[in-house]
Amino acid sequence: MELESLTIGQYEFVQNAFSFGLAVMAATTLFLWFSRGLVTPNYRMAITISGLVTAIAGYHYLQIMLSWQSAFSVTVDTIETTGSPFNQAYRYVDWLLTVPLLLVELILVMKLARGETISKSVWLGGAAALMIILGYPGEVADTAGVRFTFWVLSMIPFLYIVYQLVIGLRGSIDKQPENVRGLINGAAYLVVVSWLFYPIVFLFPLIGLTGGAAIVAVEVGYTIADIVAKAVFGLLILAIAIRKSENETG
Amino acid sequence: MELESLTIGQYEFVQNAFSFGLAVMAATTLFLWFSRGLVTPNYRMAITISGLVTAIAGYHYLQIMLSWQSAFSVTVDTIETTGSPFNQAYRYVDWLLTVPLLLVELILVMKLARGETISKSVWLGGAAALMIILGYPGEVADTAGVRFTFWVLSMIPFLYIVYQLVIGLRGSIDKQPENVRGLINGAAYLVVVSWLFYPIVFLFPLIGLTGGAAIVAVEVGYTIADIVAKAVFGLLILAIAIRKSENETG
Amino acid sequence: MELESLTIGQYEFVQNAFSFGLAVMAATTLFLWFSRGLVTPNYRMAITISGLVTAIAGYHYLQIMLSWQSAFSVTVDTIETTGSPFNQAYRYVDWLLTVPLLLVELILVMKLARGETISKSVWLGGAAALMIILGYPGEVADTAGVRFTFWVLSMIPFLYIVYQLVIGLRGSIDKQPENVRGLINGAAYLVVVSWLFYPIVFLFPLIGLTGGAAIVAVEVGYTIADIVAKAVFGLLILAIAIRKSENETG
Amino acid sequence: MELESLTIGQYEFVQNAFSFGLAVMAATTLFLWFSRGLVTPNYRMAITISGLVTAIAGYHYLQIMLSWQSAFSVTVDTIETTGSPFNQAYRYVDWLLTVPLLLVELILVMKLARGETISKSVWLGGAAALMIILGYPGEVADTAGVRFTFWVLSMIPFLYIVYQLVIGLRGSIDKQPENVRGLINGAAYLVVVSWLFYPIVFLFPLIGLTGGAAIVAVEVGYTIADIVAKAVFGLLILAIAIRKSENETG
Amino acid sequence: MELESLTIGQYEFVQNAFSFGLAVMAATTLFLWFSRGLVTPNYRMAITISGLVTAIAGYHYLQIMLSWQSAFSVTVDTIETTGSPFNQAYRYVDWLLTVPLLLVELILVMKLARGETISKSVWLGGAAALMIILGYPGEVADTAGVRFTFWVLSMIPFLYIVYQLVIGLRGSIDKQPENVRGLINGAAYLVVVSWLFYPIVFLFPLIGLTGGAAIVAVEVGYTIADIVAKAVFGLLILAIAIRKSENETG
Ligand SMILES: CC1=C(/C=C/C(C)=C/C=C/C(C)=C/C=O)C(C)(C)CCC1
Ligand SMILES: CC1=C(/C=C/C(C)=C/C=C/C(C)=C/C=O)C(C)(C)CCC1
Ligand SMILES: CC1=C(/C=C/C(C)=C/C=C/C(C)=C/C=O)C(C)(C)CCC1
Ligand SMILES: CC1=C(/C=C/C(C)=C/C=C/C(C)=C/C=O)C(C)(C)CCC1
Ligand SMILES: CC1=C(/C=C/C(C)=C/C=C/C(C)=C/C=O)C(C)(C)CCC1
Ligand code: NA
Ligand code: NA
Ligand code: NA
Ligand code: NA
Ligand code: NA
Ligand code: NA
Ligand code: NA
Ligand code: NA
Ligand code: NA
Ligand code: NA
Repeated sequence: MELESLTIGQYEFVQNAFSFGLAVMAATTLFLWFSRGLVTPNYRMAITISGLVTAIAGYHYLQIMLSWQSAFSVTVDTIETTGSPFNQAYRYVDWLLTVPLLLVELILVMKLARGETISKSVWLGGAAALMIILGYPGEVADTAGVRFTFWVLSMIPFLYIVYQLVIGLRGSIDKQPENVRGLINGAAYLVVVSWLFYPIVFLFPLIGLTGGAAIVAVEVGYTIADIVAKAVFGLLILAIAIRKSENETG
Repeated sequence: MELESLTIGQYEFVQNAFSFGLAVMAATTLFLWFSRGLVTPNYRMAITISGLVTAIAGYHYLQIMLSWQSAFSVTVDTIETTGSPFNQAYRYVDWLLTVPLLLVELILVMKLARGETISKSVWLGGAAALMIILGYPGEVADTAGVRFTFWVLSMIPFLYIVYQLVIGLRGSIDKQPENVRGLINGAAYLVVVSWLFYPIVFLFPLIGLTGGAAIVAVEVGYTIADIVAKAVFGLLILAIAIRKSENETG
Repeated sequence: MELESLTIGQYEFVQNAFSFGLAVMAATTLFLWFSRGLVTPNYRMAITISGLVTAIAGYHYLQIMLSWQSAFSVTVDTIETTGSPFNQAYRYVDWLLTVPLLLVELILVMKLARGETISKSVWLGGAAALMIILGYPGEVADTAGVRFTFWVLSMIPFLYIVYQLVIGLRGSIDKQPENVRGLINGAAYLVVVSWLFYPIVFLFPLIGLTGGAAIVAVEVGYTIADIVAKAVFGLLILAIAIRKSENETG
Repeated sequence: MELESLTIGQYEFVQNAFSFGLAVMAATTLFLWFSRGLVTPNYRMAITISGLVTAIAGYHYLQIMLSWQSAFSVTVDTIETTGSPFNQAYRYVDWLLTVPLLLVELILVMKLARGETISKSVWLGGAAALMIILGYPGEVADTAGVRFTFWVLSMIPFLYIVYQLVIGLRGSIDKQPENVRGLINGAAYLVVVSWLFYPIVFLFPLIGLTGGAAIVAVEVGYTIADIVAKAVFGLLILAIAIRKSENETG
Repeated sequence: MELESLTIGQYEFVQNAFSFGLAVMAATTLFLWFSRGLVTPNYRMAITISGLVTAIAGYHYLQIMLSWQSAFSVTVDTIETTGSPFNQAYRYVDWLLTVPLLLVELILVMKLARGETISKSVWLGGAAALMIILGYPGEVADTAGVRFTFWVLSMIPFLYIVYQLVIGLRGSIDKQPENVRGLINGAAYLVVVSWLFYPIVFLFPLIGLTGGAAIVAVEVGYTIADIVAKAVFGLLILAIAIRKSENETG
């Protein structure tokens, strides 16, 4: 990344975006955990995990924000890089943990048979972890060729997950009560759409997008995608769980 | 802002005001969450959100206070600016998150039909978010013209919200139980009055108010407005929820 | 304050007193909140607020301790002032918030009629806030005359509160169950006696008490007074609430 | 203390002991508070206080550890003192608060009549506080004579407490249910034995034990004594409370 | 350790692994404690302790990560050691506390008779503590001979524990309900297999494995082993407890 090309305004905008991401994740965590009492015990684990995902993300936004601040020395008039690297890889650490959990959330809220829950969690969660692990060597690679190779490898589990969400879960979704089917479909599509952002951004350096504006676009874009994929998604899971709880208790 | 013109006494007074704001927000958060047990489940979400709003504000007062401290180097006898910028934009980050939630609080405590709750939350919350987003480019602008233009744009959703609170919610408020109607009216007017402070202060630099005294007035004024709009408002929402809970259970 | 005149031993004694104050406040907070389950819902709010008061005080003792540490540079053999001011005004920030709440605690534990509770809270709490606000300009004043003037002004609400506690609450106290009347009387007198310390200390600089020993006396004295007025008082309120709960349920 | 005589290995061993102490205290606190649900309400206060004692100790181990780290400048090959003093007096701050509470724990778990509980708590707790207060001037004294004098004075309340635990509580212990008498006796003797460590160590500097090895012995010894007197003792109190709760409910 | 031989990429990979370990431990702690409500009171203590183990590990990963960061000075282009030592001994502090608790977890979830629970906890927990204590002098030793000697001594309690888990607990395991026997066996083997990693790594310096790649292997390997032995194991204990709770209530 060409951190040197950032203006003060761009630096501060990204800093504000990270702080916003941190606040959203922390607030969503608390909201989800306070709302556990609104759903029947069947769905508590889904909500607990939704909150864990945003809690983990909040921790990583704190680390990312600190790393960002330490990479720059800013005064009212000037901005300079300090030489301290901006550790973007915290995102991979975050994803390795949260991306599988996001899929588990979705599976848990469907309340399938125990065996199916476990097998789907293992397959989808495992694919998600593999996707992140395969992306990391590309992210830290020095050459465009290596970067691209790992992008291709990582796309395989990615496409498998997309296929499962769009086609493979069809049967399970159709067995859901009518008044939540729309919401669950929405959650599945939200995953597909918001996740698309990540492999696309990964290609930016390959097509020469690396200046100040590109950095802003990437960091702010990631933050928005994360908020959609974790916080908005978590609230959607809560809405589904509340509605299903109402169905079941009365 | 002309930070250089501040005296030590002014610096410390603002620092004390920020610390006060932080303490008020944190204490209100805890008080609201401890009081969740006093209201029926119907109103818990309103109280949870009231506490989230003050929690988010507490986080931002911490950030603002740290940014303030790092902008000055103070000894017993002297005060100097360090060159490190005072990041006032944390207020915008805060508002983007809390201002929509404040309106959602008010809507939730009315306990309208689910559809109405959602539509009013989306419209009023969306307008509030738009208002803040349109204000930001004006806040960080270099010229008075740009500042003023975004003020005008931001005033459009602002006036829409005021209109809704004063006229649009009339029907819903009239359907509330008699013994809370006064409180809810009070809450709606509290919003209108306390919010007025923000667009007025925004105009200060345009009319040349930027010296030490103006900075003190703005920062202390914001702190008081925030306490009214968030903490006092949150306690009012709690009072309404308690009274409605009493109505419904007894 | 003549911070230069402190010895290492005096510096460390005050530092230890602040750390002690912080630990007492934090521990009392946790104890009070854990004990909420011991009282009937009628008295929970009194206990919640007692704990909030000590929590807020704990936060301010942390700030005071950090400010104290940054004002001195200490080694095994030497002590020097760093020039960084010791911000005693955090006490005022603390008082503005906690002193009204202390009176509200006392009123709540009496369980008067709702109207009386509100009116007494507003009058006594308002007088307490006014007392602190009037004291602040005196505290930061440069001349003895200004200091004395604001002392006089601040004494007016102070004496009003004392009068109310000793005479005005008489009727309400006499209506309390017999086995708690002694405790409530004790709480009212504890307030009067422990509060007396503050306006007296305020006069010290006027009578020339400012050297190292005086600083130690003031800071340690404040800490003891705070512990009595907040922690001991809070535990007394808890004892009253437990006894009244036993009366009412058994 | 002759901090200069420490080797790197000794420095790190003590640092690790402090970190261990901190972790033990924090973990014990959480364990005790999670276990409150296992005992009847009669014994909850004893468990709450046991956890408070370890929480307060955890806070002080953090302060002690930070003070230790700031007293030395360590690299892979060298160790030097920085001149910043190692504030051992945090232990006194800790004791002043926790030693009385430890005796209160023991009294509470016996569930004596209310009057006896209060009088024994006041007498034993008061003696414990006096013991610590009398020890402090000796600890910070410059001459061996003063140190010894305050040791003697502090021993008076110490011996009173030992007497009470071994003889004075005999009658109350004999009235305890048979299946907990052994545990309560054990707890009383644990106090006597573990407390003995403190006045003995206090004499070390008087007999010339001050080099690196002595510092290690004292600091690690204190940490072990603290763990026995607070964490192990607290778990013993929990075991007594659980057993008595079983007796009473079933 | 030859910290000088690390590349920037290796440094960052280890840093990311530590941060990952910290996040996993913290998230598992919260998940376990939130799940206490899913098991009958009989198994709550096992779950509480599982969460304590991961909480303690989280604290130590934080300390390890901070120690790692302070040992290196990194910029975008260069990496240097600062001379500040990387305190690997935090792992021993962690183990001394958590390794006995891990065995207690396993014993508690079996719900043996009280006497057996206590005796097995004392014997297995004691052996585990001894194993760690005997390993420490080897870890900090300067010569290969001393290192090897303590490895041998530490292997004695290690092998005792392995024997107990594979043979000694057989009888107790066979008395478990059929539908959890597999899971408990799995947990016992998971302990054996994951623990093997530690004594093997301990031998690395003896066989000359100390360069950058070896450091990465050791630190990342420890992190993975810790996650398996604490977090995965804790979740397995939870699964056993949930299944046994279902057996017993339904
Ligand atoms: C396919 C692909 C990737 C996919 C990443 C994804 C899908 C990340 C999702 C993250 C989420 C949902 C975070 C939530 O906050 C990588 C790793 C960039 C590497 C290049 C190829
Ligand atoms: C209309 C307008 C504004 C309105 C801001 C408001 C209404 C903020 C409310 C904040 C609250 C309620 C905070 C609570 O703590 C801006 C953005 C200054 C920009 C200029 C025009
Ligand atoms: C009358 C008077 C004062 C009174 C202060 C009081 C009464 C403070 C009480 C503080 C408490 C109770 C704190 C609890 O922790 C001031 C402001 C010093 C100014 C001079 C005149
Ligand atoms: C008699 C005596 C002392 C006793 C100290 C004791 C008994 C401390 C107990 C501390 C405990 C139990 C801490 C728990 O963590 C002093 C003050 C050293 C001074 C010298 C004489
Ligand atoms: C036998 C042996 C050892 C065993 C260590 C073990 C078995 C550690 C287990 C740690 C766990 C389970 C941590 C969980 O997070 C040592 C001390 C390396 C010293 C050399 C000999
Ligand atoms: Na910086
Ligand atoms: Na992320
Ligand atoms: Na500063
Ligand atoms: Na604000
Ligand atoms: Na200092
Ligand atoms: Na105070
Ligand atoms: Na140091
Ligand atoms: Na201690
Ligand atoms: Na570093
Ligand atoms: Na470890």
